[in-house]
Formats: sequence, C-alpha cells, structure tokens
Amino acid sequence: MGQAMALNLIKAGYTLRVYNRTAGRAEPLVALGAESVSRPSEAATKGNIVITMVTDDSALEDIVRSEGFMERLGRGGLHLSMSTVSPATSRQLADFHDEYGSHYVEAPVFGPPEAATARKLWICIAGSKEAKKRALPLLDAMGQGIFDFGERIGSALIVKICGNFISFTAMEAMMEACRMAQKNGINPSEMMEMLSRTMFTAPVYQNFGKLIAINAEQITLQGLPNSWIVVKDIGLFKERAVMAETEAPLANLLNDLISESPSP
Amino acid sequence: MGQAMALNLIKAGYTLRVYNRTAGRAEPLVALGAESVSRPSEAATKGNIVITMVTDDSALEDIVRSEGFMERLGRGGLHLSMSTVSPATSRQLADFHDEYGSHYVEAPVFGPPEAATARKLWICIAGSKEAKKRALPLLDAMGQGIFDFGERIGSALIVKICGNFISFTAMEAMMEACRMAQKNGINPSEMMEMLSRTMFTAPVYQNFGKLIAINAEQITLQGLPNSWIVVKDIGLFKERAVMAETEAPLANLLNDLISESPSP
Repeated sequence: MGQAMALNLIKAGYTLRVYNRTAGRAEPLVALGAESVSRPSEAATKGNIVITMVTDDSALEDIVRSEGFMERLGRGGLHLSMSTVSPATSRQLADFHDEYGSHYVEAPVFGPPEAATARKLWICIAGSKEAKKRALPLLDAMGQGIFDFGERIGSALIVKICGNFISFTAMEAMMEACRMAQKNGINPSEMMEMLSRTMFTAPVYQNFGKLIAINAEQITLQGLPNSWIVVKDIGLFKERAVMAETEAPLANLLNDLISESPSP
Repeated sequence: MGQAMALNLIKAGYTLRVYNRTAGRAEPLVALGAESVSRPSEAATKGNIVITMVTDDSALEDIVRSEGFMERLGRGGLHLSMSTVSPATSRQLADFHDEYGSHYVEAPVFGPPEAATARKLWICIAGSKEAKKRALPLLDAMGQGIFDFGERIGSALIVKICGNFISFTAMEAMMEACRMAQKNGINPSEMMEMLSRTMFTAPVYQNFGKLIAINAEQITLQGLPNSWIVVKDIGLFKERAVMAETEAPLANLLNDLISESPSP
C-alpha cells in the first residue's frame, strides 16, 4: 500500500526518503530516485513532511516515539498519518506533535492496493486548516477524492472505521446468502453476478462477491485475505461504540464471529 | 407497486382487467382503459395471463385458491407470480397449476415503487422454458433487466430473498455506524454522503443512507417505512437457512432485532 502511494508521490515530482520494515520493499522506489533509510526517524527531516502508512496503533506509536523522530521532524514539520488506527491514538499523537511544535494531519484512505497504484484512493482528512492545506497537494497526488471532516483529530478515522464496518457487514451478509443459496441449489456465482450488476453495484459486492461465491461452502470472515484488518477494524468500531455507549449488536456479532477461532 | 407495473403494461399496449383490495387504487388504470373487476378470480380469463403482486404468502394463496380462479384461468393459462413469497409456497402453487393444466412462472422484482414507475425493475425468473418465453414481453414492459434462474420454481425467489437480506444488513450497518458517528461528534449525513458517493455507490446506501443519517439517534429496522417487508423477508431467509441447515448468525441477529418490539 505504502509503496504504491510513494510511487505516485515520486511521479508527482516529490523527493522521498523511504523506510520499510522489509528493506526490499523500498527497492522499486530507490530505482526511481528515492533514498532508502535504515531507521524510521531518518525519513523525517527538519520542517518537512513525513508520511506514515503502517499496520496498526503500536506500529505507528513505535515510529513516532522512536529515538530522534520528533527531533528530526522539528518545529514546523508535518506528520501526515494515513494508517487506520484508533481515534484516541491519533489524538495522543497530535498532542505529542504540539509539544514539539510540529503539526499532525490524519488522512486514512479507502481503497485496495490497486486503487493506491491507480491514484484512486478516497481520502478522509482531519486537522488544522493550515496543516491540511499544506498536505493537500500530496494527498491529491495519491487519491481521486479528498473529504474534509474538520479540525478535530479522530473525525476522519471515525468515518474510515464506520466505512470498514459497513464493508465487513456486507461481506458477512454475502457469505451467509451464498451459503444458503448454494444449499438451495442456486449457483452462488450466478446469483452474485446478478446482484452486483443490479442492486449492489458497490466495489465491496463486485470485488468480494466473486471470491465469496466461489468459496461459498467454507469461506468465513477469518478466511478472507488480510483478515487481520477485519479483526483490527471491527475491534476499533466496537471500542468507539462502547465508549460512546451506543448500541451496536451487529458490530458485537461480527466481533464475536471473528474472535471465534484463532487468528491466522 | 402493482399499479405502477400495470401502468407500464397498458403503455406497452396490453389490455388489462385489474383487481385491488382497495378499489380506488384501480382508478388511474381504469382511466387508461383497464377494466376493474370486483373479485380476484375475475382478473383471470381462459387461457390468458394473470399477474399477481401481493403482500405475502397468504394473500397469494387466498387469490389462487379463491372460488373460480383456477377454473377461469383454465388450461393453457399462465400465472405470472411476482410477489416475494416463500419458495415452498411458490412450488405448491406451481403444482396446483399443473393439476389444472395451467402454467406458473415466478418473477420476483427488485426495486422500489419509483423503479416500477420508471420501468426500471430488475426481475428474476424461474419456470418452464415455454412459460418464461411467453411471459418475457410482459416482463420486458415492466423491467430494465430479466435474469433467468432456470426451470426449478423457487430459485428466483431464493435470489430475491438473499438480495433483500443483503439490503437489510446494509441498513442495520448504516444505522449502527451513523449512531456511533453521531455520538463521536460526526455529522452522520456528511459521513453517509461521502460513503455513498465513493465506496458504497449502490442504491441501498444512496437511498436509505440519507434517511438513516438524519434520524441517526432513534432509527431502527422496525422504524423503517414498510418495515413489515423486513420482518417478512428476514423471516423467509431464516426459514430457508434453517431448512438447509446452513449457519446464518447475521440473519438470526436481524430476525431477533426485528422481533424485539411489537410490529407497527
């Protein structure tokens, strides 16, 4: 994901220093002129912009709190945080940047890696007006649409977490429908083909419908490619619902379903 | 729904006899040349085609088993059954027609009344080849696409029931997401506007997203307009899943949610 996004930044003319846990991942970027660094903090340079795209809250915290990261970014620097993490973590990081005089924008993205490659990500943003304005040209180089959810850090992440919850619900619904249909003598692929061409023309149905239909008998949320994302983001949704004291029986059910067997 | 469909048949040049429980509903059709009859059986004429679009299984059974209905339709008649009912009921009716030498095609439709008016229904069909061929011009006058699920009666209804289940799941997901977002300081309308323009471009999100967002705090599946359809069709889905012995935790949850308070 990060690689595809970085490629689009290089294409747009930006000069990059890149870091990835797996060093080889940076190679295609280095071939195009990026400088590969051996520690995350080295990707940050005085008063410039640093972009993070990582797995989860702890990976993000590890980077920001790694030795020298904040000092290297320094006053006037901008951290563009694009991972899907908890809004609470995002707010803490924003406060941490405040202490150092650097700025923070959260900008979680919707779309699979192919969308990142094609510069077709949908990006939600939150942060101070000036910081967002500064981030805009970079976001524009990575996405096809940018949606501003205000100044309050955490707001863009709430929207992202809600969107993922709606997607995962759609997947579980397709799984139950394909299973039931198959047992009733219907070809699930034929059914999903019809449904995703007519009433359910959204990407989640069109992309995952095929995959679910051909594996109708055995597929589960845990069996999806990258099911760790489902586990993480349903967990984030449930956490926010509990904190806000809103009823979320569907989120609770998905959370139970995904927790039933050991994660892969 | 039936009125809008009948109007399109009249526009396509068909001569209709129409019956509705509420007599006034037939008036716009009569004004265009349809003959209004006072009993359902009088809508059936020897060897011709009769179309039914009714509330549920018992309403459909009442019509077909009403005095004189089968005799009036007679040998070579065709019953085009377009309501969403149980596949089991549909099969029983098909057998009943067999006894009388008449034919039966099931043709449940996807789309709201506005889609019926605009001749934009999506129609799934099942039945014998010859009977479907005979029904095709009429279906074509009512819908924008016809999807053939074979000869086995019940198959088109399974697809319709699966489609509605997927829709209702999407609605519950939007309700939980809007509720959680609102409590977290996000404007749910702004969120649904973004989501339904990007990742969730299907009609269920675009049409119901607005309604759910503006009522985020109190809306439930039971509070939806026409929530009796949700009750009925989730019931039909659950019934088929139980009969087929497939796991359907999401369908069970929706069934519980919709059964919690007395139906309106």
